[in-house]
Amino acid sequence: MPLTENRRGGSDGLLESLAAVVGDRHVIVAGSDQEPYVVDWRGRYRGSARAVVKPGSTQEVAAVVKLCAGQGVAIIPQGGNTGMCGAATPGNGEHNVVVRMDRMRNIRSVNPLANTITVEAGCILAEVQAAAATVDRYFPLSLGAEGSCQIGGNIATNAGGTAVLRYGPTRELVLGLEVVLPDGQIFNGLRALRKDNTGYDLKQLFIGAEGTLGIITAAVLKLFASPRSSALALLKLQSVEQALEVMRLLRDAVGDRLGSLEIMSRGQIEVIAETVPHIMIPFELTTPWYLIVELTDALAGTDLGGPLEEVLVRAFEAKLIDDAVVASSEAQARAIWSVRHSVSEGNKRSGYVVSHDSAVPLERQAVFADNVERRIVAAVPHARVVMHGHIGDGNIHMIAILDRARCSDAEATAALVRQINEIVDDETAAQGGAISAEHGIGLANRGRLARVSDPFEIDLMKRIKTLLDPANLMNPDKIFAVE
Amino acid sequence: MPLTENRRGGSDGLLESLAAVVGDRHVIVAGSDQEPYVVDWRGRYRGSARAVVKPGSTQEVAAVVKLCAGQGVAIIPQGGNTGMCGAATPGNGEHNVVVRMDRMRNIRSVNPLANTITVEAGCILAEVQAAAATVDRYFPLSLGAEGSCQIGGNIATNAGGTAVLRYGPTRELVLGLEVVLPDGQIFNGLRALRKDNTGYDLKQLFIGAEGTLGIITAAVLKLFASPRSSALALLKLQSVEQALEVMRLLRDAVGDRLGSLEIMSRGQIEVIAETVPHIMIPFELTTPWYLIVELTDALAGTDLGGPLEEVLVRAFEAKLIDDAVVASSEAQARAIWSVRHSVSEGNKRSGYVVSHDSAVPLERQAVFADNVERRIVAAVPHARVVMHGHIGDGNIHMIAILDRARCSDAEATAALVRQINEIVDDETAAQGGAISAEHGIGLANRGRLARVSDPFEIDLMKRIKTLLDPANLMNPDKIFAVE
Repeated sequence: MPLTENRRGGSDGLLESLAAVVGDRHVIVAGSDQEPYVVDWRGRYRGSARAVVKPGSTQEVAAVVKLCAGQGVAIIPQGGNTGMCGAATPGNGEHNVVVRMDRMRNIRSVNPLANTITVEAGCILAEVQAAAATVDRYFPLSLGAEGSCQIGGNIATNAGGTAVLRYGPTRELVLGLEVVLPDGQIFNGLRALRKDNTGYDLKQLFIGAEGTLGIITAAVLKLFASPRSSALALLKLQSVEQALEVMRLLRDAVGDRLGSLEIMSRGQIEVIAETVPHIMIPFELTTPWYLIVELTDALAGTDLGGPLEEVLVRAFEAKLIDDAVVASSEAQARAIWSVRHSVSEGNKRSGYVVSHDSAVPLERQAVFADNVERRIVAAVPHARVVMHGHIGDGNIHMIAILDRARCSDAEATAALVRQINEIVDDETAAQGGAISAEHGIGLANRGRLARVSDPFEIDLMKRIKTLLDPANLMNPDKIFAVE
Repeated sequence: MPLTENRRGGSDGLLESLAAVVGDRHVIVAGSDQEPYVVDWRGRYRGSARAVVKPGSTQEVAAVVKLCAGQGVAIIPQGGNTGMCGAATPGNGEHNVVVRMDRMRNIRSVNPLANTITVEAGCILAEVQAAAATVDRYFPLSLGAEGSCQIGGNIATNAGGTAVLRYGPTRELVLGLEVVLPDGQIFNGLRALRKDNTGYDLKQLFIGAEGTLGIITAAVLKLFASPRSSALALLKLQSVEQALEVMRLLRDAVGDRLGSLEIMSRGQIEVIAETVPHIMIPFELTTPWYLIVELTDALAGTDLGGPLEEVLVRAFEAKLIDDAVVASSEAQARAIWSVRHSVSEGNKRSGYVVSHDSAVPLERQAVFADNVERRIVAAVPHARVVMHGHIGDGNIHMIAILDRARCSDAEATAALVRQINEIVDDETAAQGGAISAEHGIGLANRGRLARVSDPFEIDLMKRIKTLLDPANLMNPDKIFAVE
């Protein structure tokens, strides 16, 4: 359909200009065609857009931004639209242009010598992982949405995932960035340098800024040696403290061969057992906590099972663990991981989910989890509190599952959610934590952040925002509201 | 001596106020007492100060900054004064206050469970390393000045050193920061969190900003498992390309067990042999290039010698190396390292040193080194060009050593230096590199940075500077001149 027929009536100079830049078929104006782009994937946030545009190059992104900026139109950068906090959803009103990065999907180069890969922002995360694997290298960022999320979005949200313990969050994987700023200028920071001390490290501004300071168009990322040996065990424990003591033994014994350390509460696994029919729980539930331990090594044929079993014996003797299942095959390891990977699906199926993403100092996790559970259950007796998380990162997800039958009244439910959020946020702050460890702020957590943050920090963020985007047109109202 | 007798005449309300904050004996006003603080350690930059003050706490730093800001007095933060670029030296004029961090020297806590250490800015780097070692953990930042440099200065300059290949520059070692901003407000970012996605990562602004945006007062740093096994070899090669191919073989074989990779040109080692009497070169000079390879592992008793020798055999067969010396004892390893650690001393003794700190993409290092050497020798026939560097980081130091007898005319020498710098900088830019990999900009490289940088980037840095320090009083004129 030509653009003119799609238009919602009248001549629209901006749309014509956008089409002149990116091509007619890359400007989407019909309401139904826009649907995938104006609602977040969980259906919690809905906005509207004058157009969704899909530029095919950095220059086209810059031209689109300049056109929008020239007309005072808000720009909403969007990757795979898999975010947890609505950071890629436009607001209401007809003055938004969503900029989708799908067409910038080239792996520009892979360099196994320098251990770098240069990618365009629209590359799917799984494609980046695969491109690294073709040269026997490893891109460690890994998360549930990796089959559809885009690397530009991962960088803009400083994505976490299951490999943070060993490799750090996305920020630590970025060597260089190319960014289109709110005025359409291009920041050419696409350098493949391991070391660069020539003044302020400007690229840091855009990592984790959720698209509020510009549109990331390309990146140089770090690659690593591929893991070629691994060993996995599931441990049964009485407490979070014991899990941390096991972590200490593991670190003392194998250093950074400790690749993953994922904890689940018994209630979390019970929810999966009850609601996810295709998942078999390959161990009996006999203790309150379950810890997946995975060791990995870049050297093929490294004996990791031996050191792992030694640590387990010591943990047994120190009464840190009640039982342990060491995976004897790749299939058994996969079966154990599949439980961990089913937490979101299980929770969703079992009720109305109020999930949290706090990080607290490692040694505060036990008291944090206890306090939160006790207070939520006291405040909302029908809530079921389950927990899972990246315990080596201090990132324990507290999940309150509400009885759906009691959540029919939207307003009452919203009040309950608010109450639960405040419990979690206050306990997070009391333990010196952050209310968002890896999911970000977006629209979802703006009010919560404002409530618990040092006003000075929010003010400094706003001043930086205003410096780069004085008209407040680049993904406005995400993270914080600019007055 | 009481403050009033030290003063250079007349009543000075600022000095009295500063003394009221930090105590009389921590305000140094006498010219000779100030000497260690107003000249950089190489004696290349000299400024003057109305006072050198030594606050004892974050609150005292904030009060000092407020006093100076209130009177329009420039503040020069200074750590151990070991920087390479004059970033900690005050300018001329009597309106500078140097803020020394010596008295903020507490290790506030060490946490072997969370692998973190919380330190005050004035801690000597070696003390931080030692504090980590007391709990069997490893703080990897390591550099020549570690016995006297301060961790606050390391963070402010994003120091590099010999462990970047494996652990990254200082930026990647910082989890949290406490900073006194130019208006005296305190940024309380001293969080010990591995993950924190609550908005912009403000602490990044201050890392590598060379004190131009505030005074770092404390930090939370990452610790790692202590290396307990190691293997070292010295390789003799014909070219930088061969060294990189060896690196590729090593990475393929041992992943990130590759801890160090340091290259030296034959000329570099000859300079040491000629001028540093206490250094024995424990191998014969038969090829143009020499590569130190060190593998480390956190696991005690790991056989690293085996994999190293396997790689060396393959490298031999592929004609990548002419010869290799595998250290058979700790003493032999130390003897090889002592050659590397003598490069600065050797160069200094052999002539007038014009040193460079470029980083270029790894695979461009060979052509970069060739071009630079050829052009310098053509332009300055009496120059001796030697090279050493962190080849795995793309950071190859090009050193032109001029005959001191021909450098008696200061103006002519300055012109020569400028000419050499321009050759290096142009070649660096042509290869997509950065003129400062780890030393920073300070005063020394300001003009050079301005010459080769994208004006857009310098402009953005200046805008950030002005946002945080509108009166331009916090370490003014470092990195760039603010108009």
